[in-house]
Amino acid sequence: MRPVAILGIGQTVIDEQWDKSIRDIAAEALICALLDAGRESAEGVFVGNMMSGIINGQTNLGPLVADWAGLRGGDAVKVEAACASGAAAFRSGLMAVASGELESAIVVGVEKMTDRHPHEVTAALATAADADYEVDMGVSFVGLNAMVMRRYMYEYGWKHADFAPFAINAHANAVHNPYARLRHTITLEDFEKSAMIATPINLLDASPIGDGAAAAYLVPAESLLPGTRLLVAASTSATDTIAIHDRSEALFLAAAYQSAQAAYRQAGVVPADIDVFELHDAFTIMSVLSLEASGFAEPGKGVQLGLDGEITPVGRIPVCTRGGLKARGHPVGATGVYQIVEVAQQLRWECEETQVPDARIGMAQNIGGSGATILTHILRRES
Amino acid sequence: MRPVAILGIGQTVIDEQWDKSIRDIAAEALICALLDAGRESAEGVFVGNMMSGIINGQTNLGPLVADWAGLRGGDAVKVEAACASGAAAFRSGLMAVASGELESAIVVGVEKMTDRHPHEVTAALATAADADYEVDMGVSFVGLNAMVMRRYMYEYGWKHADFAPFAINAHANAVHNPYARLRHTITLEDFEKSAMIATPINLLDASPIGDGAAAAYLVPAESLLPGTRLLVAASTSATDTIAIHDRSEALFLAAAYQSAQAAYRQAGVVPADIDVFELHDAFTIMSVLSLEASGFAEPGKGVQLGLDGEITPVGRIPVCTRGGLKARGHPVGATGVYQIVEVAQQLRWECEETQVPDARIGMAQNIGGSGATILTHILRRES
Repeated sequence: MRPVAILGIGQTVIDEQWDKSIRDIAAEALICALLDAGRESAEGVFVGNMMSGIINGQTNLGPLVADWAGLRGGDAVKVEAACASGAAAFRSGLMAVASGELESAIVVGVEKMTDRHPHEVTAALATAADADYEVDMGVSFVGLNAMVMRRYMYEYGWKHADFAPFAINAHANAVHNPYARLRHTITLEDFEKSAMIATPINLLDASPIGDGAAAAYLVPAESLLPGTRLLVAASTSATDTIAIHDRSEALFLAAAYQSAQAAYRQAGVVPADIDVFELHDAFTIMSVLSLEASGFAEPGKGVQLGLDGEITPVGRIPVCTRGGLKARGHPVGATGVYQIVEVAQQLRWECEETQVPDARIGMAQNIGGSGATILTHILRRES
Repeated sequence: MRPVAILGIGQTVIDEQWDKSIRDIAAEALICALLDAGRESAEGVFVGNMMSGIINGQTNLGPLVADWAGLRGGDAVKVEAACASGAAAFRSGLMAVASGELESAIVVGVEKMTDRHPHEVTAALATAADADYEVDMGVSFVGLNAMVMRRYMYEYGWKHADFAPFAINAHANAVHNPYARLRHTITLEDFEKSAMIATPINLLDASPIGDGAAAAYLVPAESLLPGTRLLVAASTSATDTIAIHDRSEALFLAAAYQSAQAAYRQAGVVPADIDVFELHDAFTIMSVLSLEASGFAEPGKGVQLGLDGEITPVGRIPVCTRGGLKARGHPVGATGVYQIVEVAQQLRWECEETQVPDARIGMAQNIGGSGATILTHILRRES
């Protein structure tokens, strides 16, 4: 594989965008990335999206988005891996450029979820679980995560309030991100009093859905001057069972472990080298499991990183520096590309109030289903 | 890019498979391809599928299929490009191996469509058209193709019966394909008396849906002995507008032209070198437009190839040699991989009654939407 660099990034605000269609939102992010890259076109368009067929009545987003953004004609395809669709599309675009098949690619993650009734969105989100063996039993996606969180609290003795720092940090950082959906701080008291969704997950454990898109422009690293580049140092993907009950260990994200370890080997780094980590905090419990499986804490100890203040922008392993899924928002198929864009912003030193000092190596981890698909990407600033 | 070879192929029968889930069908084809390749595993699984989220309540097919087939852990993702999802997944798997990222990949196209009411399937198929500007006006997918066929007949002066040879050839060939859905011959009289669906498209112009899966095992060509290999000589993808009314020319498949021309250049061949052509005969009119745009006939003259008997296994450009979409069946997201598998069977000289004599170079062309996404693959037998 030839090395690949990120030449441009773009994103839209995450909100209820009822006045725009999915093609409008995707094209907005795509064109922002083109402008940021200083390019007028790209040879391929890779769209990460989970539920356009179900929610928007639209499949084949590849040509739809490419055409709407003025890139009619070239390679264009949609890649889907539930909530990991964004990172999966990024990896597809990366391989197209790395293989030499394309000289440039734009990856766009997009989701438009708020036009439909929340019950329909809840049903659409449940398609990420095992339709035959989980959903047919009546469990929702938040219900599955609630069972995992309850078991974790039982096994390791943590109480619900111990998870609060993850939500508080995400909201504190989102205040400074103009693209975030929830730009307000929360307190421990807010967290404890928040409405229950599926015990023990309450509203402030859970990330909000939204309409949004993010994009990244990829080129061969060799086409840019050495010393000035933002390189993709690692791209890995691993999978587990779709159904949680099929795993030998429900509290350890095996695919995160496998994916992160492979990424560290590819990039030639260890966890301590990671300056910033945009993880997949769909629920607070997922932040904890992700940190543990990725080597930042022992199993059962991830909660302590939050309590010790190590996850803030000045901590040992800053996470959700732009708000994370919790407060930036979680337009599911777009999230993986938002994470990449946010790591790029950190490595470009553009994050102002939430900038991680001297950030040079950043990691993004995107999770599809309850740990069924996990992709890890490591980016590196060259200078 | 390093060259890639097809080491194994597999497929299931296309039928109403109500006793099997989508994972069963996909895994059956996948395991057949593993056995054919003489391998026990693969580093990546690329699933082509259009409508599992809408029809089967299941997204994230990558890990679902990989796990069910015994390949838990590795790279696994779904690629979607409407009815071109199969070829799009093949191209993704190809690039993963060509880039050096993976040393082996299995591509599986799968669709399970017959569990739901036909009205629901019709609605799901319509998601391949433009949701905002075509479907909202009330047009179905067959309705769109009917307007194209009517315009073609008006512009070029053909009558409906002139399209019959495409359906008759497909059915005649399917008789000898044990995996085909409709294994019976039809006559010109059958064609003319067939029930009307959307004037002028009648039942025998149209391909049947079905449940089925096909798979191909990809490896670097350098890992096999020269002289014995089935090589992927070209892989191209091009896109057009989703909506037909947005095109300057509704009767010319610009994306087929662009994709086929690029494929000929990649493979170093001209149309006359193609021994067998598995084209996308979702409707008879699409066979005609595909032949014209791919350089086998002038615009408006493609119908003549059928009337002259040039599309049979012993004709100048044999098409649908295993039954095509019309008679083998069209499980939409699987079709593109069935086409690849069938070209491989021709180049392996395994087709008996419908074998194209001395076939050495074969082409498959898969169409998503009414020409929005078109992928062309050329395979070459080395010895």
